Amino acid sequence: MSGTDSSKTGILGGPAVILVEPQLGQNIGMVARAMLNCGLGDLRLVNPRDGWPSSAAESAASGAVTVIDHARVYDSTRTAIADLQRVYAASARSRDLVKPVVTPRQAAVELRVNTAKGVVTGVLFGPERSGLTNNDLALADSVIAVPLNPAFSSLNLAQAVLIVGYEWFQAGIEAPARDLPLAGSRPATKDELINFFERLEQALDAAGFLKPPEKRPSMVRNLRDIFARAELSEQEVRSLHGVISAFVNRHGDG
Amino acid sequence: MSGTDSSKTGILGGPAVILVEPQLGQNIGMVARAMLNCGLGDLRLVNPRDGWPSSAAESAASGAVTVIDHARVYDSTRTAIADLQRVYAASARSRDLVKPVVTPRQAAVELRVNTAKGVVTGVLFGPERSGLTNNDLALADSVIAVPLNPAFSSLNLAQAVLIVGYEWFQAGIEAPARDLPLAGSRPATKDELINFFERLEQALDAAGFLKPPEKRPSMVRNLRDIFARAELSEQEVRSLHGVISAFVNRHGDG
Repeated sequence: MSGTDSSKTGILGGPAVILVEPQLGQNIGMVARAMLNCGLGDLRLVNPRDGWPSSAAESAASGAVTVIDHARVYDSTRTAIADLQRVYAASARSRDLVKPVVTPRQAAVELRVNTAKGVVTGVLFGPERSGLTNNDLALADSVIAVPLNPAFSSLNLAQAVLIVGYEWFQAGIEAPARDLPLAGSRPATKDELINFFERLEQALDAAGFLKPPEKRPSMVRNLRDIFARAELSEQEVRSLHGVISAFVNRHGDG
Repeated sequence: MSGTDSSKTGILGGPAVILVEPQLGQNIGMVARAMLNCGLGDLRLVNPRDGWPSSAAESAASGAVTVIDHARVYDSTRTAIADLQRVYAASARSRDLVKPVVTPRQAAVELRVNTAKGVVTGVLFGPERSGLTNNDLALADSVIAVPLNPAFSSLNLAQAVLIVGYEWFQAGIEAPARDLPLAGSRPATKDELINFFERLEQALDAAGFLKPPEKRPSMVRNLRDIFARAELSEQEVRSLHGVISAFVNRHGDG
């Protein structure tokens, strides 16, 4: 954020906002405006449909140009969150995923606690019409579901970002909660976590576990859910690599 | 609200939303949508610039037609609030007015308390560009000011209504606890969990992982911590047994 003039934009920081395959530039612009309203500066775009940069986005940002100018574009959700250590997914509740579901207010408190400890966080938002895929949801630690009129709960993209950002801002005026001590380590990055997932899955493929092929995706997601939920530290990811090595090498010796 | 089908719209009620001289039909539609998201049904329009009814409003309402259909038009703010007993004005803080200033969260609690007592309430929102005039502000009991980035605090009309409505809705529900859906399974018993721990540790002993002996207790504790934290379901414990079997049997085959 070196180019940000904080006298004009306020102090920017806080969780990254990751828009996965946003469709309209106008919506990206309105997201940027909502972010700046709430003091959020880190906008990440995964494959924006209409390309980037976008004059429609700039126009809809209504002055939030600093957020637009610093936005970064990625070719996958995975690369967009690689450096993050704690990721939330804004989504309707899903019965298929085994993952903690929190309100925006609870998430905001957790995000404040983590940010204060130097943990790098972000929130995923899906495409306007379809929302996040199960594969993207599987990369998140927790789901943020906004309690609204159950008969009419669908928010547009900028409004969903606004609610999450608004709670983030409000939580900065108040006080914290849920905390996980890490015994001298630090939270694993998503890159470290996903590398572990892939190594585990390779080893399980080699062991003939992830069969039949049509069941493999859901088996992989279920296993990833377990470890995603455990909020692993970097040290723990290394321990789990050690577990896999022990099993694999034992086979090599046999 | 006699024509409202509550099975499709949820239970509508709560404070009236009074838009004073709104300009674009599109914005009125987005306000209607935000209102329905938050269970609010009483939309009042004071001299909408582009007339009423408005096809632009209907189109932008994205299905919140019941709010649009029941909207009422007035020729002054005074007549629009005539039947109300407690009125808030959404506005930036003003040094000129001597009036209580509350946050949306504080206002929501007050609105809930009043509504429960049968007091009829409403919130005034000004035109898109200029906001409420001092004359309109003078009609309100209190001002609602949204705490946001002081360097960039301007919200668009629908977003301002959304924030106030969102807080209204949150104030009406008990805060749900952090929740973990279990996809048809149930939380594992401690017995199931400890059986899994012991099986994992046996397999790791056989693989030569838990060495040297003096380090074994802390290694075991660290691994147990990871899985204890994951709040495993019974189904997931079975999956993890499958993982161990796959590794162990692969060795058997080798």
